[in-house]
Amino acid sequence: MDFTVDFSEKDSYYLIKVEGEIDAYHSATFKQKVKEKFAEPKFTKFVIDMSAVSYIDSAGLGAVVSLLKEARNLNKELVLAGLQSQVRKIFEMTKLDKIVKIVDTVEEA
Amino acid sequence: MDFTVDFSEKDSYYLIKVEGEIDAYHSATFKQKVKEKFAEPKFTKFVIDMSAVSYIDSAGLGAVVSLLKEARNLNKELVLAGLQSQVRKIFEMTKLDKIVKIVDTVEEA
Repeated sequence: MDFTVDFSEKDSYYLIKVEGEIDAYHSATFKQKVKEKFAEPKFTKFVIDMSAVSYIDSAGLGAVVSLLKEARNLNKELVLAGLQSQVRKIFEMTKLDKIVKIVDTVEEA
Repeated sequence: MDFTVDFSEKDSYYLIKVEGEIDAYHSATFKQKVKEKFAEPKFTKFVIDMSAVSYIDSAGLGAVVSLLKEARNLNKELVLAGLQSQVRKIFEMTKLDKIVKIVDTVEEA
């Protein structure tokens, strides 16, 4: 299945739209692409639109944890939006939802 | 809750017994202690006894993924044994059970 990461500059935040599965095959690409954007000084807020992410595995969770640490080190805000229910459940079971801000829609971020 | 990592040299493998929760508070300690043992040339097989681990979160899964990568780089074998059912479920949901060897008991490792 294709995996894509698209970027879009909004007024007050950087929107990152991920499509596909954030799994062992794609988590390194995902992490690297988002980290590159963290390096840009223009924005401090990064919203990841997860509505087209159908699955995340342990490697993907590891990538999210790593991005969260990096964001904190750089004083950037990271928000995840629009998680599908099965993905949200994995975040809840692993308590990742306690350490990263999750909102229902990009508009709420 | 206390978190302990105990080490024991067996005939053909290094046994690592973890007790407590492998979560955001303890995952760095867990990872560091196991990595230190990887550095010892005597053993190539490392069995982690997880029977006293009541919970693992996303940070803990990230630590396991990281240890697994390190083990592969060093040509070491990593086996997890005795997972409690709720911990095993998290490994299954995140497909970590597909990339790390999991056995029911230390004796089977």
